[in-house]
Amino acid sequence: MNKEIPPDFKVPGFLASGISAGIKKNQEKDLALIYSAAPSLAAGVFTTNRVKAAPVLISMERIKSGRARAILINSGSANACTGKKGLADGRRLSRLIASSLNIDQESVLLASTGVIGKPLPMNLMENNLPLLLASLSPDGLGDAARAIVTTDTFPKGAIIRKQANGQEITLAGIAKGAGMISPKMATLLSFVLTDAFISPKALRQSLKEGVRGSFNRVTVDGDMSTNDTLLILANGEARNREIVPDTPGYKKFSGLLHELLFSLAQKIASDGEGATKLVEIVVERARTAFEAEQVARAVATSPLVKTAFFGEDANWGRILCAAGYSGAPINPEKIDVYFDDVAIVRRGQGAGSIMEQQATSVMKKREYTVRINLNRGKQKTSIFTTDFSYDYVKINASYRS
Amino acid sequence: MNKEIPPDFKVPGFLASGISAGIKKNQEKDLALIYSAAPSLAAGVFTTNRVKAAPVLISMERIKSGRARAILINSGSANACTGKKGLADGRRLSRLIASSLNIDQESVLLASTGVIGKPLPMNLMENNLPLLLASLSPDGLGDAARAIVTTDTFPKGAIIRKQANGQEITLAGIAKGAGMISPKMATLLSFVLTDAFISPKALRQSLKEGVRGSFNRVTVDGDMSTNDTLLILANGEARNREIVPDTPGYKKFSGLLHELLFSLAQKIASDGEGATKLVEIVVERARTAFEAEQVARAVATSPLVKTAFFGEDANWGRILCAAGYSGAPINPEKIDVYFDDVAIVRRGQGAGSIMEQQATSVMKKREYTVRINLNRGKQKTSIFTTDFSYDYVKINASYRS
Repeated sequence: MNKEIPPDFKVPGFLASGISAGIKKNQEKDLALIYSAAPSLAAGVFTTNRVKAAPVLISMERIKSGRARAILINSGSANACTGKKGLADGRRLSRLIASSLNIDQESVLLASTGVIGKPLPMNLMENNLPLLLASLSPDGLGDAARAIVTTDTFPKGAIIRKQANGQEITLAGIAKGAGMISPKMATLLSFVLTDAFISPKALRQSLKEGVRGSFNRVTVDGDMSTNDTLLILANGEARNREIVPDTPGYKKFSGLLHELLFSLAQKIASDGEGATKLVEIVVERARTAFEAEQVARAVATSPLVKTAFFGEDANWGRILCAAGYSGAPINPEKIDVYFDDVAIVRRGQGAGSIMEQQATSVMKKREYTVRINLNRGKQKTSIFTTDFSYDYVKINASYRS
Repeated sequence: MNKEIPPDFKVPGFLASGISAGIKKNQEKDLALIYSAAPSLAAGVFTTNRVKAAPVLISMERIKSGRARAILINSGSANACTGKKGLADGRRLSRLIASSLNIDQESVLLASTGVIGKPLPMNLMENNLPLLLASLSPDGLGDAARAIVTTDTFPKGAIIRKQANGQEITLAGIAKGAGMISPKMATLLSFVLTDAFISPKALRQSLKEGVRGSFNRVTVDGDMSTNDTLLILANGEARNREIVPDTPGYKKFSGLLHELLFSLAQKIASDGEGATKLVEIVVERARTAFEAEQVARAVATSPLVKTAFFGEDANWGRILCAAGYSGAPINPEKIDVYFDDVAIVRRGQGAGSIMEQQATSVMKKREYTVRINLNRGKQKTSIFTTDFSYDYVKINASYRS
């Protein structure tokens, strides 16, 4: 897992910047701007939480046009549960950005992350917009990645350059979040830029499919914070033949986009707050995809399973127990469990102390797989989770102070 | 909260004992027996987990008769995921007990708690049955309470003596569990004895209703471990007029039983593993009982809410966020939140820093209430939860070793 921002981290036609506006303490970067020099297509995926932050409400409305020119992002304050003032603040900031860039206010998208319930520090932000705008640069995407983090221990960026429909296209993305450990509430933000020439429908469809195989795989219920936002902008600068749905070009583009999203999602998973382990939970031979999902999520979110991962304790009973309460109509006497290749449970019973010792060795690794074979059908799923450590409690007990 | 076993802790006609059989380390008590000198009615409530321990399967079968004479309980080993051997071991122990007490084997109920997946140490247990039987005494219920604990920090017992249907009746109960903090997997065991004369139907009905208002209120999803078992025996020794459903006598008896169960459940909640806080989550003015339940459980089980309780951080945004992802169709802009009497959220927005300071004072208490007013209807529910502390992780990371 590469924890550095990649070299040559830029996409033709896009500028970005990230600065410290004083929203966070210690002069950390906390304000980012992404700008497309040309008109650009846009698509997005947003939180399903009933409580939606002001920037989410604004961006959901604006992205209906399928187009956007800029994204303003801040960390340190979520602008959630801030009522009419929150919406007015968001709109005001986008108006100021739009007027400086001479673009339509409706083409500015917004995202925020940080503490819920505090109004944005508008003075600080407005005073720093000129610096933010002046810092826009083709090389600014790394700074933007640094400005959007909260409890992350490293900034997250990934880039892919490949041929598609006759031209080299570039896809670059940044992300923030430490979603695995706080399964339902850590905010996930991600912004993807591409110069591919693609139809609006193909862009929306590919993004939607990509989320399923990436962020929804590694951030358990990660779509549940008030602020979760994933946006993609496509400016067509690569001048490839247009990518449209259900063609080889679409398949190619989707493969690249999904690879990028999966890479970002894995960085998030491995940066779970205080996490020391990255564990893939594979559920196989389920009768339905839904029951595979039920079992995988029950195991991946069980506090007792996660503390056992931290303690490197091959306590497979907790895994069976979680499978048992998952709601899936499993037959416990048919279940096999593997830690990597070590069969620790056979037909619902422990495989003995030698296997347990071997499983304990597997658990000493930083990354491994727990495979649960339900022996009921043909469906399979997988999900990434992390352990529950002392540091998790420490980080989250005092996050605001 | 009284953490002592009550004085004069006995019920006419019942004997009990609790000894160390060496199943647990350090010569802690780990084997308990309860015996009714006369034929006795019995009713029970068991885990809904698909993975059921052998003693649960055996007791569920046997209690269909509505009668029982003895309960054998061990801690230190759950006898879960032990297959045919687990069932055979359980049956063999009950046969040995039955033969010594000269009662029917089918009238012996079983319960176990401890590590999943290890066979019962039959030699140790069989060798110690004579001592266990010889220790039976009217005063042995406190020892039994001590023998059934696992990660509990104190043994749990409660007793009530009151008039009902013309006589003084006694209800006494013991329990083990630390269910709040490990919401889905800490085993809950509880055994209630009464000398009330009551019809089988009234006994079953009252127990079922009582669980809803007690254990299901304080152990979030506590019915989910592989071994959860609640049993009641009633021997009729009080010679009161028979208690039958839908009578004032039934109402009286049920009131007492529910008070007893609630008292035991609260002891469990306050003994959450590593817990430093006991917080009642009240959801009121919901449109339906179900949506009240959804919101209460989402808040009560949120790791981020629970770490904020530990950190004494009035981070109300996490509470709104959990309400938002609960699945209930709430309107965030209508929600008020109180910490005891401090209104910290009004109509979905923070009530300001003075209120937050006052809420922070509330959070310094050992016990307080978080009240969430949805302002949608007339339904209300409440649930007890605890905080998530460093010690929780510590206890559960190395529970087996």
